[in-house]
This record gives sequence, structure tokens and C-alpha cells, in this order.
Amino acid sequence: MNRISERLYQAVQPIWEQTHRHPFVTGLGDGSLSPHTFSFYMKQDYLFLLEYAKLFAIASTKAVDLETSARFAKLQEATLNEEMALHRAYAERFGISAAELEGSQPSFVMHAYTSYMLKVAYQGTLAELVSAVLPCMWSYWEIGKRLAKADGALAHPLYGEWVRTYSSDEFGELAQWLIDLLDRLAADSSEADRARLEQHFLTTSKMEYLFWEMAYREELWPIR
Amino acid sequence: MNRISERLYQAVQPIWEQTHRHPFVTGLGDGSLSPHTFSFYMKQDYLFLLEYAKLFAIASTKAVDLETSARFAKLQEATLNEEMALHRAYAERFGISAAELEGSQPSFVMHAYTSYMLKVAYQGTLAELVSAVLPCMWSYWEIGKRLAKADGALAHPLYGEWVRTYSSDEFGELAQWLIDLLDRLAADSSEADRARLEQHFLTTSKMEYLFWEMAYREELWPIR
Amino acid sequence: MNRISERLYQAVQPIWEQTHRHPFVTGLGDGSLSPHTFSFYMKQDYLFLLEYAKLFAIASTKAVDLETSARFAKLQEATLNEEMALHRAYAERFGISAAELEGSQPSFVMHAYTSYMLKVAYQGTLAELVSAVLPCMWSYWEIGKRLAKADGALAHPLYGEWVRTYSSDEFGELAQWLIDLLDRLAADSSEADRARLEQHFLTTSKMEYLFWEMAYREELWPIR
Amino acid sequence: MNRISERLYQAVQPIWEQTHRHPFVTGLGDGSLSPHTFSFYMKQDYLFLLEYAKLFAIASTKAVDLETSARFAKLQEATLNEEMALHRAYAERFGISAAELEGSQPSFVMHAYTSYMLKVAYQGTLAELVSAVLPCMWSYWEIGKRLAKADGALAHPLYGEWVRTYSSDEFGELAQWLIDLLDRLAADSSEADRARLEQHFLTTSKMEYLFWEMAYREELWPIR
Repeated sequence: MNRISERLYQAVQPIWEQTHRHPFVTGLGDGSLSPHTFSFYMKQDYLFLLEYAKLFAIASTKAVDLETSARFAKLQEATLNEEMALHRAYAERFGISAAELEGSQPSFVMHAYTSYMLKVAYQGTLAELVSAVLPCMWSYWEIGKRLAKADGALAHPLYGEWVRTYSSDEFGELAQWLIDLLDRLAADSSEADRARLEQHFLTTSKMEYLFWEMAYREELWPIR
Repeated sequence: MNRISERLYQAVQPIWEQTHRHPFVTGLGDGSLSPHTFSFYMKQDYLFLLEYAKLFAIASTKAVDLETSARFAKLQEATLNEEMALHRAYAERFGISAAELEGSQPSFVMHAYTSYMLKVAYQGTLAELVSAVLPCMWSYWEIGKRLAKADGALAHPLYGEWVRTYSSDEFGELAQWLIDLLDRLAADSSEADRARLEQHFLTTSKMEYLFWEMAYREELWPIR
Repeated sequence: MNRISERLYQAVQPIWEQTHRHPFVTGLGDGSLSPHTFSFYMKQDYLFLLEYAKLFAIASTKAVDLETSARFAKLQEATLNEEMALHRAYAERFGISAAELEGSQPSFVMHAYTSYMLKVAYQGTLAELVSAVLPCMWSYWEIGKRLAKADGALAHPLYGEWVRTYSSDEFGELAQWLIDLLDRLAADSSEADRARLEQHFLTTSKMEYLFWEMAYREELWPIR
Repeated sequence: MNRISERLYQAVQPIWEQTHRHPFVTGLGDGSLSPHTFSFYMKQDYLFLLEYAKLFAIASTKAVDLETSARFAKLQEATLNEEMALHRAYAERFGISAAELEGSQPSFVMHAYTSYMLKVAYQGTLAELVSAVLPCMWSYWEIGKRLAKADGALAHPLYGEWVRTYSSDEFGELAQWLIDLLDRLAADSSEADRARLEQHFLTTSKMEYLFWEMAYREELWPIR
């Protein structure tokens, strides 16, 4: 099979390499990241997840077979009921209460990124939706695996949990499932359709980069 | 609080009374329903559930608080992963394989009913969505409770499971949650909005009645 | 080019032949249709158009090039602002006021048919949307052209306008544009996608038939 | 009537005042804006319009009365078929061909802003949709009227057309229609609903400001 994921992976390298070198990401690995900055990130990430879960819900309505539909439903449910609880527990260790998490002000980049994915989800095909949501998962897995190799990163008292989560086999299997699904959905696609998938993939990869940047600068809105 | 559910309950009585007297429904209670007819119903109901689950997914994306969103996600997930498995097991007792269930031809009324709810879900508010999906749950609960009082209905070898499911406290709590949610969502609604909710509620109640009728006649399409 | 429209045309013949022989349709051609029945039809058709126009709006948001998007926008606008005005003028000749048209009770089949198309529009690709809305236009054109050959049908004082409208070159060009668009959209489709398009096409063709039947019986809801 | 537009107008003043003072906007009025920068803006604005038109299409499907639905359809049609032609003619005067306009690279802020409005359009009520799209129209009208008072601004060879368009009575009537519509739609809204409308209004007002900023910096993506 002509795997579109290989094409996407090649195309995205310049962006993902920039991400791997971003000070927020390297700071997660060597522990140099300020807990204050990480707290800022956690709040935006919490708001992000609320919207991200909706993408799985929409995917579930667009899937044409029961198995895929049910899998997306499980993902959405797990995101809203389990993953967000884990986030609340993790945030508590940084002194952030659940109320504070939920009352956080959404940043411009959080809005931009999640809105773009949701727009694609509502307007496009399931393949388009998956191509737009995949960079988040796939790049987190890539970052997780790379950071896991750094000395002490997995055991770091503050950021070790983050590294363990996103380098885990469980998370990797989830990302791989999405990758394989996209390969199947795009198997018979025309070049015009494939170019559109690549466009979404690159666009949200750049937004993902900007999310790290927003968190690192602790910038809600780039307005004076 | 001005509970819209009370208004809906009053308005729908003429339709629901017809449903309680429908030979499919009475036949479930006294065991006189033909297993062949029930098998026909099960197949259409299976296709129905696939679409019904999507309504919960859409509801989850329209809810404005995490708790409601997460509850709808759980509902959708449970419908696709648990309830449909129960349906497959139940259907097997009637000699219907999973493949047969999934390969069933959709009937006109199944299409009409689920499409109407989905249209409302996509176009309308969360309150509209709930008003459209509620008659199915609420009327099943009413039917379940009424049939449970009939001699031997709960223990009937073929239909007892149906009666036990829909008269159960668990199912009742689910229906009651939806009822209470609609009451909250409509609490501050204008009369124009309330009239629209009532319109959806009556429309899908009539479609629910036609679903019983379609099943009883074992009629896929009313075309010669 | 492998034109999917040819496949659809072949597949739908049994249904469309039934439609050509339906007493409502033949009555339009030989003038034997009761004006009362036609009035019933006009009211349901008016409600139908309101929903049908929405399909063009959704199509406009799903088109990926400006030209197609703009054409659908024009179609929607012309439907809501011109075609509905023509309908009001035509209806007036039958003694039906604009208020009466707008206040008409929607029939079950009108709901079923438009809701199905809208559901497909919201969930599916643009090709799916077009395959679902096409039977209405295409079959009206076929009926118009066939009736136009019947003695006196074009000049009939009551129904001539209907026959002239749907046998006109202008209407034919519109239908042909949709047919050609679907052919282009489906040009590179997989067999699974083509089978889905055929399914929608046959389903709404059957619903179109049921619309004639509903009008002929003057039946709002098939409930006693 | 309790006009929500008055509340929104008060709330947005700090943002709109910043916009009035932005060098892109003041440069439009005193002619100091670089034509190169204006050309950059025109390309992003062209891409913006393509998405903005979709918001009117979605509004048309969510309106519950024919008049509002038809008005939105007209707006969408006019945007895609007339306004974009005007943009192409205007751009030509700056040496930008239609092909160049259509082939422009979308900027991050263009994506962010239009995606947010589309997300709200798909998920929310018609009132929410209108509250999100209104800042663009309303603030353009405010800017147009203010610039029209500047010496020579209306007659400027390059930017006079922009100022004449957005200070015109015709444009003002359109903005006023949207304002009045929102007032009507929100007339019976609860405080929670009104707060949500205000949130959308402020969010897209800030995005509108960032659009000016992006154009002024000629910045496609804030990534090195």
C-alpha cells in the first residue's frame, strides 16, 4: 500500500525538527523548564483537550463502519472522563486546582489551533479530520520517545510523568492506530485529495509549534 | 422551576396512549408477538442505535460544560461498545448473527426517524437536540414500566429481557437525567423556543410510533 | 471518463418508471389531477423547498473551489428569493395565500426526505450530498420532458406552468450541471465510495416516489 | 428592548480604540500606507472572504424564518459573486492578478480568525454565529466612517475606494441589519447566553485587530 503517512512524515520534518529544538521541549527533557511556565502550559492544554475530545466525537459520526466509530467514541470518552482527570491530578501537584484549570483564559493560539481542526472536522472528510488531528498525537509520541532517552528525563520529579505518558507503548499504539487509519482512508485518494491532507497536516504541525511557543512565552494574546 | 417536561408529557399523551395500545407493544407484554416480527424489529433497532449514538456524540460537542459533555460521551461510548454488544447477544438467541444484523437493509421509517433527529442535532441548539432524542428513551421507559406489571412479562423467555431492560432503574435514571437536562436547558427559554421543542418532541414521538408500526408490518419501504 | 451518472441512471430505472406511471404524475400530464390534490402538493413542496435550499448552502461550504461554491450560493439564493416567490404566485392561482403556504403542516414524508438529504449533507462528502439531492432535480426534468410530449400538457390552464417549468432548457441545464458535477467529483472514487453514492441516489429516489404518493393520498402522517 | 448591541459596543471600546490607532488603519486614512503592505492585506482579505461567505451560508441554514434565511443567502451569494469580483478588480489596480489572489498562501491569523468563526457557526446558535461575525462588519463601518472625515481620504487614488466602500450607506445598512438581528435574537436570552455572545464578540474583535497587525507586518506565520 502507498502509505500517505510516509509522505507526511517526510514533509513535516523541517517543522518537527524545530519543535524538538524548542526550549520548552528541551526544557522538559533536561528539567530546565520553569514550573511556572509548565503551569501555564497545563492550563492551555486542559482547554485544548476539551476541544480535542470533540474532534473524536465528530470523527465517530463520520466513520462509516461500527468498529472505527466505536473506537473514536471510546477515545472521546476516555479523553473527557479519564485523561482530564489525570490532568487535574497532575496539575494539583503544581498547585493548580480543578477550578483554576477550568476557569483558565483561553489563549489566542489555543483558539486558533483547536478551531482550525474543528473547522476541518465539520467541513471535510474523515481523512481530512484525521490528517488535522494527527500531528498533535504523532509529534507528542516523537517528542516523548526522544526525551525518554535523555538522562533522568523519565524519572524527573516534575516532568517525568509527562515524558512517561507520551513515550509509553499505550500512547504509541494510539498514535499508530490513527496513522494506520489515515493510511487506509487515503489509500485510494486522488493526488488532489492527498495534497489537501498534506496541507492540513503541515498547517496543524505549525500550529502545534506555535502552541509550544505560546506556552514558553506565557502569552495569552499577542496584543500589547 | 417551570419544567418544560411536564408540558411535553401532557402534550404527547394522545400519541403515547396509541403506542401503549399498539399490537407490537402489547404483544411484547403478553408474549403474543411473533418471534419473526421481533427479529425484524431487532435488525431495524440495531441500525437505529448506530445513528442514535451519533446524536450523543453531537450533543457532547454542543454541551457548554465539561460534566454534560463527558456524560454524553459516556453515553455514546456505552451505546456503541456495550449496548450494541448486548443487542448482538440478544439477537443471537433469535438466530440472528452479527453479520446479519450489520448487513440489514435500512427501512424507510428507520431512515426518516434517525435523519430527522440528526438534522435537528446539526442545526439546532442542545435543547432542541435533547427534545428530539428524548421521546425514544422516555417512551421506552414508560412502556417498560407498564409491561413490567403484566403477568409473566418480566419472566417471558423471549421478551422478558426487553421488558427488564427498559423497566430497570438503570434505564430509568438515564431517561430521568435527559428529562432533567432538558428542563434545565429550557428553563429560561422564550415561548417561541419552547414551542419549537414541543414540535420536535411531538414529531419524533409520532416517528417512534411509526417505527413500531413498521416493525409490526415488517415493512422495509411502503412501496409496492 | 467513467461517468457515475450512467451507472446511477441504469440503477434507478425501476423506481423512476414507477414514478412516471404514478397517478399524480400522469394526472399532471392529462389534466385529470384534482386541483385539491395539487394544492396539497404545493404546500408540501413549499416546505420542501425551504429545506432543499439549505442543501445548496451546505454544498457551498463544502465546495473546494470558488466557482462551485459561488454556483451553489447562487442556487440557494435563487431558490429562496426567486423560486419561492414563483411558488407563491402559482399557489395564489389555486387560492392558496402566502400565509397559508408558510403555515402548512409538514407531512411525515416531507420531513423524512429532507431530513435524510440534510443528514447526508452534514455528515458526508460533497459528492455524497450531490448524489442525495440529484434525484429530485433529475427526475423532475425527466418527468417534465416526458409530460411535455403529451397532448395539451404544456398549455393546460392549471398544470401547464408546472410542465413548462420542469421541461425548460433552463431547468435542464441546472440538472445537467449537477449531473456533470457529480461525475467530476466521483471520477477518482473507489468502488466503496461509488456504492455509497448509488445507495444515496436510490434512497432519495424512493423517497421522491413516496412524496408523490403522500401528495396523491393527501396524507400528512400515516397514523390513524 | 434591552439591546445587547449596546453592551457589546461598550465592552469592545478598548480593543476598537487600539484598532483605530493601528498604523495600518491610520495609514489608510492619511495615505501613508505602503502599497506593498496593502497588496499583502488584499490577498489575505480575499482568502478571508471565501471563508466569511460560508458563515452566511451556515447562518441561512440556522435561521428559523424564511426572510432571515433568504437575506443570509443573498449576502452569501453577493459576497461570492459580486464582492469578490470587486476585490479582483481593485487588486488588479495594484498589479495583482486573479490567479495570484486565489493562489495566495493563507496566513496563520487568517486561518485562526475564520476557523474560530466557523467553529462557533457549526456548534452554536444563530445568535452566537452573528455575535462572532459582527465585529468584522461593524468595526469596518466604524473605521470607514472615521477615515471618511480625514482630509482627502475619500478621494485618495489608492485607498479612497476602500474608504468609500466601508463608509457607504449601503455597507452601513448591512452592518445595521446584523446589529438589529442580534438584538432581536438575544432579546430573551439568559445572562449566561449573553455572556457567551459577549465572549465571542470580544474574541473576534481581538482577532480582527491581529488581522491588521499581520497585514502590517506582512507576516504569514510567526515562525522563524
